[in-house]
Order: sequence, then structure tokens, then C-alpha cells
Amino acid sequence: MKVTPYQIIEKKRDGIPLTEDEIKFFINGLLNGEVADYQMSAFLMATYLKGMNTEETFHLTKTMLDSGKSLPKLGENCVDKHSTGGIGDKTSFIIGPIAAACGVTVPMVAGRGLGFTGGTIDKVEAIEGFQTSVDLQDMKIFLEKNSFVLSGQTDDIAPADKIIYSLRDVTATIDSIELITASILSKKLAEGISGLVMDLKYGTGAFMKKVENSEKLANSMARVARKFGVSTMMFITDMNQPLGRFAGHSHEIIESIQVLKGEGVKELHDLCVNLAAGMIYLGKKADSFEKAKEMAESSIKDGSAFKLFKEFIIAQGGKDFNFEAPEKSLDIAPNCLEIKSIEAGYLNHIDNKEIGFMLIDLGAGRRIRSDKIDFGVGIEFPVKLGDKIDKGDTLCKIFHRDEQQKLVQNLEESFLKNVIKIEPNRKVPPKLIEKVITDII
Amino acid sequence: MKVTPYQIIEKKRDGIPLTEDEIKFFINGLLNGEVADYQMSAFLMATYLKGMNTEETFHLTKTMLDSGKSLPKLGENCVDKHSTGGIGDKTSFIIGPIAAACGVTVPMVAGRGLGFTGGTIDKVEAIEGFQTSVDLQDMKIFLEKNSFVLSGQTDDIAPADKIIYSLRDVTATIDSIELITASILSKKLAEGISGLVMDLKYGTGAFMKKVENSEKLANSMARVARKFGVSTMMFITDMNQPLGRFAGHSHEIIESIQVLKGEGVKELHDLCVNLAAGMIYLGKKADSFEKAKEMAESSIKDGSAFKLFKEFIIAQGGKDFNFEAPEKSLDIAPNCLEIKSIEAGYLNHIDNKEIGFMLIDLGAGRRIRSDKIDFGVGIEFPVKLGDKIDKGDTLCKIFHRDEQQKLVQNLEESFLKNVIKIEPNRKVPPKLIEKVITDII
Repeated sequence: MKVTPYQIIEKKRDGIPLTEDEIKFFINGLLNGEVADYQMSAFLMATYLKGMNTEETFHLTKTMLDSGKSLPKLGENCVDKHSTGGIGDKTSFIIGPIAAACGVTVPMVAGRGLGFTGGTIDKVEAIEGFQTSVDLQDMKIFLEKNSFVLSGQTDDIAPADKIIYSLRDVTATIDSIELITASILSKKLAEGISGLVMDLKYGTGAFMKKVENSEKLANSMARVARKFGVSTMMFITDMNQPLGRFAGHSHEIIESIQVLKGEGVKELHDLCVNLAAGMIYLGKKADSFEKAKEMAESSIKDGSAFKLFKEFIIAQGGKDFNFEAPEKSLDIAPNCLEIKSIEAGYLNHIDNKEIGFMLIDLGAGRRIRSDKIDFGVGIEFPVKLGDKIDKGDTLCKIFHRDEQQKLVQNLEESFLKNVIKIEPNRKVPPKLIEKVITDII
Repeated sequence: MKVTPYQIIEKKRDGIPLTEDEIKFFINGLLNGEVADYQMSAFLMATYLKGMNTEETFHLTKTMLDSGKSLPKLGENCVDKHSTGGIGDKTSFIIGPIAAACGVTVPMVAGRGLGFTGGTIDKVEAIEGFQTSVDLQDMKIFLEKNSFVLSGQTDDIAPADKIIYSLRDVTATIDSIELITASILSKKLAEGISGLVMDLKYGTGAFMKKVENSEKLANSMARVARKFGVSTMMFITDMNQPLGRFAGHSHEIIESIQVLKGEGVKELHDLCVNLAAGMIYLGKKADSFEKAKEMAESSIKDGSAFKLFKEFIIAQGGKDFNFEAPEKSLDIAPNCLEIKSIEAGYLNHIDNKEIGFMLIDLGAGRRIRSDKIDFGVGIEFPVKLGDKIDKGDTLCKIFHRDEQQKLVQNLEESFLKNVIKIEPNRKVPPKLIEKVITDII
């Protein structure tokens, strides 16, 4: 008897695991018209509430992956990184060059800003001429040259995910461990990787608020990746404050170059070294993670990572970029408002999601898909959670346009009132890297 | 801040009760385009899995009711009955006339066949000329004349229910207590009733398989009806075997007339008297349910119920109907296959749903909406659960067309093999009326 969309929704609704054929029929049915979008959204809600086992999540991922084109496996040295996103998260175009400089092949397909978080692809587009739309065939050419390529998602990668994601986005079915797993992996596995480093952010500026949820997602992704023969390292990292000193497109490019030159702030430098080391280790270029960290550090010290960064930017179209004085090539908003503390104590809390919304208010993010991003606006954070603050200390600088005087005054007021908490007793700030889960095949 | 469809789905997904405004916005949004069908289906699945409290179900019902037109309240004597449906269920056009003959005003809006069960409106259409499409304004005219009118659902009653039902039908969200409650009540309350008798069927030939589920639905409907100021009597009745002796459109009209003439089989007669008595009691035409039963019995004995039936049929267009020899006015399939028992024992089990599918195979039901119904085919059941059966006893007669020889042979084989169970030891058959829940306001 032929299975119907109804029966599959009913089974998932009742918490009965679906077979490979049922999942294939349902997902492919969405593409060929046998399954309506309103049936898919009922299915997504049932999946959200009833979950999927590893076997089902694997078949879901596989079907979504197979709905598009993939690169063939590019060998055991081919590794990528994916981050669940946050404020000031600029690690992709730092660690890609580090890992590539250490011999790893890095075919990185990245995303644009999502909700209150920025996106890697938007950030590199601050570099004039940089091409972010590279199709799978051309990726191979770039990889042969520089071992690193960075592209936005093109239409030929996991088209089923694109449709499903747009439904999840409007039906409150985004934060499902299994659906996130399938969505991320179906895109990442199209790159032909043998290893995947994940940066799972948790905290006030991340989609996952709690460590436990990040850990659940990490385990789900590791289990499914294993079924595809892909080794993983899952870094569960703090997003209760902006990552690094800057947020905003041009500003983050400048900060990234600082890290590649060995001049980055400690915590961003450390996270990049750890993530890059994960890629080097999974890519079999080091016998141990510790050795891989040493290699990552060396590639910064000896300039090879920065050299690879330059070659990669030039190869993808940024040939006029001034790498020694990047601020000369980038659009930077001319005005700066310094927000100073009106009290003394310890910086114990940052509502980091609100900083994401401040950036959107400034124009460094999209409210609707067609919004144009202002690369030059941004925010600088000279202080960190746990820091001792005196009255008058600068907590935050806002780089803005002439016509945004009124807006930044409002932002200042809201920042002091709603975004930060300064208290008499110091709270221990969260660790940058909370946990690492390694699964080597 | 303006509420969004997303936020409402999210709330329901997380099991948080919705406010009146949220429910109104969401349901009306489906009609005015602010809520997409794929958002509604995610909401329906969330509601199926997380439920609704009485307050929410009330607002859902009210919004669906208010999406269309209603009759104003027609007074304390205005009562209707609704059945959740089954095989051979023909009580509507028997008890309508009985209750009306006893002084109750009965504005009955009924449905067509659904899934494996037949529908009241299809059944009366076996009577040539009978008009089943009466709009709300015309209903009043019929009621003034005969106190009973029977109509199919018209477009002006609860249009939101129509759209939502068609989505539930393809997204496995039909059997939700709250959604069923709102769907039935939003249509019934448009009739301006003060009382509602429900016949909640359970068993192999009903949508609810278990008494407990029927009881849950009964309580949900009673609680919501109360909030509308409507008294209820909920009869939980057996549907583990066909109701009465016949199933099939023309055959059921004949059997109904037998009941109205006092010549019906006991169990069908008893159920009709009970349901009609419920209507008489809720319609304040009797001080007690026992008194109401006596009135119902009297109306059959003294011919007043049958007289009202005739007037009602003629008023709605069946003026050439031969009430004394109805078989002369009705299309009856000419052939009869008798299925005889090949074993001896007790009839302990009937897969009543399969009998529904046999009727559909014969043409007495629709596979797709546009199928035309054959009023003349049908099935007769001379035996009941718990009966002692000898080898060669007739278990079932199939009335069929000349060209259906091959089909009925297959049906015979399947009937003996899959539909009935004859066993050496007698099982006690289920009670016809399992439970009655009365809620008088």
C-alpha cells in the first residue's frame, strides 16, 4: 500500500519512529508537490514536540543533503567549522586561514545574519570586490590554490533545507535539536568534509540560552555526523558577552586581521586557536589536540596564517584591499559616542541579545530580507564580564553616522538601563570554553 | 506591541494558555490573510499535542461561530441533536419529528458522509425532491410551520470551521478533543439552540474507539456549551455493531419510517426514544427525563411523530413520496446476496468500520468528494452481537446492482474472514447506552 503524507504526520504525531522510506517520501514530496507546505508545517511541529531518534535524524539529514549537489569527499584533511552564531563572532575568516596554513583543506559555506546575530558572509562583504557566491565546481578550483574558500549558500546545496527552514522560521519550529542538526549537517556535508568543528554558543547572545541545550545539540550532531563517517569536535562556548572587542562589519574585519597578526585580544585569540586546532587535529595534521594548538599559534607567529588570509581575499576578488592599513579600505562610520558608567562596581551581566538589536537599530543588521547593511557602524567593548568598573569608565563606544545622533542617545539610555548590570559584588564570569566533546572516527 | 502569528504558535507549542484576543487574532487572521494555512496547521498540531483549557476552547468556538451568521436564540424550547456518526445511524430524521411533535423547536443542521460513516443529509436525499440546502433565514420559516427543519451546512455557518476542518483532514489533527468540540459547537450554536443532545458513539464503527475518549469529549463539550448558556445531555452509545437492521440510504429511510410507525427493531427504537426524550427534557417540555421518554413513546403510538415526519418531508420538497409504501418511492438495488455462517457459535465481534468500507465499495459512500452516491445499495443485519449462530444462518444480506456480482463475492469472503468473529463462548455484548451525562443550566 502506498504511504500517504497523512500517515507519516500521524505516526510522528504519535511519537512512532519513521522509516528511511517514509522520511524520503515526505521530504522529497515537499519538492515534487506530493506534500503540501501546510502538511510539512504540521509535521515540523509534531517533530518539534515528539523528537526524532538518531536513525531518523540521519535519514532526514541524508534526504535533505541528497536534495541538492555535493562535492565528493575531498580526503581526510578536509575539515570545516560551523558556529551557531552570536554577537561579534568573527572566527570563521580567522581560523579558516590558520587551518589552511597548517595543511587543512577548508571548503567553508557560511551564512548571513540571522535574527539578532551577524553573519560571516555579510561581514566579508565589507571588503570591496569580495565574491561570496561560489558554486560547488568553482570551490574546488579555489581549494586547489589556497586550501581555503568561503562562500554563501548557493541554490545547489540542500534546496530541501531552504524550503523547510523558511517554514520553520514562521511556524515556531526553529529550536528543535533534530531539525537544527539536519539543517546544519545537510549543508555542511555537501562540502565533502571528513571532519567538522562546531562552535556551539550558549548564553544571552546565543540562540541556545543554556549549556545543557548546547550539549544536547552537540551530542545529536556528533551522533549523526558519525553515521556519515565525519569526525567532530564540539566546542560549547560562552556568548553571554560579545566575542572580542568589536561588533559590526568593517570593525570585525579589522579585529580579525589583528588576531591574524598576533595582536588580537586574548579571549578571541584563544578561541580562534582552539577552534583552528580542532580543525588541524580532525584534519589529521597533528597527532594530538595540544600539538595542533601549537601549530595554530606558530602559524600566527610566523605570519603564514596572515599570508594565507591575504591570498584568499585577493583570490576571491578583494585585490585592492590594504592589508597593512585595513581601515583605509573599509567604510567606517565617522562619529563615536562613548557610553560611560554612572556607577561603580563589577560588570556582572550583559544582555547580549539586546546588543544584537542595538546593532540592527544602527543598520548593521536586517529587519527584513531586503534591508541593506551599513558596514561602517559598529560597537566597541573595552570591558569584559567580571571587570571592576569605576564611575566614568567607558563601557562601550558606538560608531555611527551623522544623522543617528538621536538614535544613539536613546541607545545610550537603554544600554545603561537595560543591557548591563553593575553590582557591588563580583560574579565569576563564565568560562570562554565550557566544554569540548570530541568524536574521532 | 502587536502580536504575531509566530508568537501565538510558539505559546501553544509551549503549552501556555492563549488569551481571547490571541485566539481571535489567529482564527480571524486565517480568514483575512494575516495567518497562512501552513501556520494554522502548525498551530493545529501544537493544539492537538498540548491541548486547550475550557476557556481557550470556548474562545476558539466563539470565534469560529462569529466568523459566520447565526440565528438569534430561538427560545428555551429550541434543542438540537448531534451524533459523532457511525454505521446505520439514522436517528436524526426519526427523533427530530418525535421531539417536534412533543413541542420542541428543532433547527437541525447536519452533515454528509465522512470517512467510513454515512451522513444524515446524504440519507434524506434518497427521497426525491427533498431540499437539503436551506439558508438560515428560510430555516425560521420552516420552523414556524413544522417546528423541525433539516439542512446541510451552508456557507454562511462558521466558515472558519470549514477551512480549519479541511486542514485538519490532511494534517492528522482531526481527533483532538478541543478541536472537535469547537468544530461541532460552532456549527450547532449557529442554530440559536438552548439545549443540545449529543450522541457520542464509541467502538469499532466510530471515530472514538474507547468509552473513555467519548467521555472526555462529552465533558469538554458540556463545559464549553455551558459557557454559551446551552444545556446538554451527552449519550455515550455503542457503535461496535451497525445501529438497527439496515445500513444504506434508501434502506435506512424505510427503517426510519418503521420506527416512527412503532415497528422498528427494539434497540434502534430505544435509542431514538432516549435521544428524543433528551431533547424534550432539555427543551423544557417535560419535568423529568422519565416523563420525556413517555411523551416520546406516546408520540410514536398516537401517530403524531409520523404525521410530523410526513409534513416535514413534504414541506422540504418530498411531496410525491409514498409514506405508506416507501419502497415504491425509493431506489432499491434489485439483487440480494445472503451471507450465511459457515460455523456455529456466538457472534462476539464485528469490525464495524469494515462494514462502512463495504458500503463505500458498494457505492453507498464517497471515496472522493465528487463521487455520486448510490442510494439503492445497502446491507441488512438480521443478527446482533451476542446472538447464538448456527451453521447456515444468515448473517448479512447485501443489496446490490447486477454488475456487482464479482464485488459482492469478494465482500462475502472478506466478511466471513475479517469482519466477524464467531466463537464457542458468548461474550456479553456492549450496552446500547453506556452512559448519560446531563448538564442543565
